[in-house]
Amino acid sequence: MVHSQTRIDGQGIAACVDRFRARRPHVHCITNTVAQHFTANVLLAAGGTPSMTIAAEEVADFVSMADALLINLGTMDPERTRAVDIAVDTAIAAGKPWVLDPVFVQASPIRLALAKTLLGKKPSLVRANAGEGKAMFDVELDQGSLKECSDRFGPTIAMTGKADLIGNSKGTARVENGSPMMERITAMGCALTALMAGFLAVEDNHLQAATSAIAFFGLAGEVADQNSNGPGTFVPHFLDALANLSTDEIEAGVKVS
Amino acid sequence: MVHSQTRIDGQGIAACVDRFRARRPHVHCITNTVAQHFTANVLLAAGGTPSMTIAAEEVADFVSMADALLINLGTMDPERTRAVDIAVDTAIAAGKPWVLDPVFVQASPIRLALAKTLLGKKPSLVRANAGEGKAMFDVELDQGSLKECSDRFGPTIAMTGKADLIGNSKGTARVENGSPMMERITAMGCALTALMAGFLAVEDNHLQAATSAIAFFGLAGEVADQNSNGPGTFVPHFLDALANLSTDEIEAGVKVS
Amino acid sequence: MVHSQTRIDGQGIAACVDRFRARRPHVHCITNTVAQHFTANVLLAAGGTPSMTIAAEEVADFVSMADALLINLGTMDPERTRAVDIAVDTAIAAGKPWVLDPVFVQASPIRLALAKTLLGKKPSLVRANAGEGKAMFDVELDQGSLKECSDRFGPTIAMTGKADLIGNSKGTARVENGSPMMERITAMGCALTALMAGFLAVEDNHLQAATSAIAFFGLAGEVADQNSNGPGTFVPHFLDALANLSTDEIEAGVKVS
Repeated sequence: MVHSQTRIDGQGIAACVDRFRARRPHVHCITNTVAQHFTANVLLAAGGTPSMTIAAEEVADFVSMADALLINLGTMDPERTRAVDIAVDTAIAAGKPWVLDPVFVQASPIRLALAKTLLGKKPSLVRANAGEGKAMFDVELDQGSLKECSDRFGPTIAMTGKADLIGNSKGTARVENGSPMMERITAMGCALTALMAGFLAVEDNHLQAATSAIAFFGLAGEVADQNSNGPGTFVPHFLDALANLSTDEIEAGVKVS
Repeated sequence: MVHSQTRIDGQGIAACVDRFRARRPHVHCITNTVAQHFTANVLLAAGGTPSMTIAAEEVADFVSMADALLINLGTMDPERTRAVDIAVDTAIAAGKPWVLDPVFVQASPIRLALAKTLLGKKPSLVRANAGEGKAMFDVELDQGSLKECSDRFGPTIAMTGKADLIGNSKGTARVENGSPMMERITAMGCALTALMAGFLAVEDNHLQAATSAIAFFGLAGEVADQNSNGPGTFVPHFLDALANLSTDEIEAGVKVS
Repeated sequence: MVHSQTRIDGQGIAACVDRFRARRPHVHCITNTVAQHFTANVLLAAGGTPSMTIAAEEVADFVSMADALLINLGTMDPERTRAVDIAVDTAIAAGKPWVLDPVFVQASPIRLALAKTLLGKKPSLVRANAGEGKAMFDVELDQGSLKECSDRFGPTIAMTGKADLIGNSKGTARVENGSPMMERITAMGCALTALMAGFLAVEDNHLQAATSAIAFFGLAGEVADQNSNGPGTFVPHFLDALANLSTDEIEAGVKVS
């Protein structure tokens, strides 16, 4: 495991992507059925290795083999909820990074309660948009409150939106890559969170890892935007860009501060 | 809510699509796992907003926020069946449109029994192909029997096939848009029904809403057909067309009577 | 049902593909939620007919209508496990071909135990990669041991990898079609196994059927590779190739021995 100095710039981010591609981290994903297929293809295109089972009986075996764990709360059901507990406890016991995506928790009290229980187990990272972040942390997340929330609750926090903000006790970063088209495609955020889990497995400076994943993902979106004519042709070009973006293109293309 | 005079022509249909794009209706979809991802992308490409949870504990919260509800009976399981009951009762109590897609009910007596129970709760719309329609209504659906069935059972009925027929107490319509390629791609019909649910949310003349959704969907298929070489490249071009078809192109392209 | 002499050459394989396209076999697939959508589209593009329900209550009705059955053990859950038993017993009673894909059984003792129980019921075919094959048969599979394993356990065995080996009591075959890109796309192996199930339904020389499906699938991958720039654009071109490859192209393109 590499623990880098925080380098929120093109070189630091490109180095992190290179390491991801070299290590091919295995991310076990407990995610919703809408997102499973696209998430697996994003991880594979970027150079990682997905597994996806949600069976409570076998999830511990998969998490034990994996380098990182994703918990995504979209489309929960009793089996999946049981698998989440086992998977998280397995990851914690093995000291593996795990990431929480509290999808749309503001819509459902039962989902929010589950998300808050999981937050109490101190995930390595939480990714949320503005509405989800407000429900989880009871404050509007901005560059100031992000750091405070991270200090108080434990995880690195990434708030994705028009610009993406990432923060923890080491500091904060801001990413401005991406394309408006990404809002017209389902499971984009879910797949990004899975990718972030993989980056945590190759870089234990979590501010660096999360920022690198978000900038790389957004840059691939920009390339796809230039090569496509709508949300349909965007997707294949997006996956191609995740596979093909060179170190130089990443260094030159990320917009971070 | 707009309640238009029935206008089964280019202008009436284009106006309905414009309203869909402006209102961005939220459709909660209880649909089969094969269709979830494509259905969400169809709704997003067309300008709507999908949600997809099937957890019985939270489905009422999602339906309460949504503008319309889709019930698709492909790949049922006990959890999903429980969620269907709650979701339908929530939609009925709130006076929201809900749509039934009795996928392949002729294949399974248990599925047919569930579909008929749901039909008794008077969905706003039922979409079926010839075989499903026969099983549901015990008659061959044609332009004459459609209206009778709608009068007798309650819902507007759309029978999709080589030509699509739509009927209710206001009258009947016939749509001849589409591409044979659409039969070589899974979940096309499931996604169409979800789109129809969204159209019901922006137009409470359900004959107008259903006909507009079907003609728009079929026209996007024609555009995709011209731009692709097979069922694989068809899909991205189809989603692009849902996003990009202009008001003028819709007015000029729909084939309705 | 055609029972051909084994003809592991371009003409024999092209004839088998032609028969698949003409017969449009219906394959009922009990497969993981990651693979369902892509598997259905592969079957449809190639000219088959998929169904996908996993509900224990209705799976027997679907298997009774189908021409072949696929059992894929990725993402098992209790409902799916119950459906597997019913489906397999239905297929056996009706004398229909059924295929087992013991996805990643080496990762989970519980999954391996289930796979071995199913092996005891003598599937028509097992497809496995090297790791899965080792776990299932307790030997390294190669051209020699394949035949022995098939004789001992019953099913035709296909071991997919850099080259693909197929063997049963009639002999063995080796296929060298394919593209490295196929490893960067999720559910490729799962979809291949579903296609193989469909080929067993139109050709009861199972060595011929399995070899034909694998070579055809790999050749479509080669065409897609030539027409695409990465794992994203590969997929639509792959599905197009399954639909469009001509008899002549198949005869000329398969690499078998």
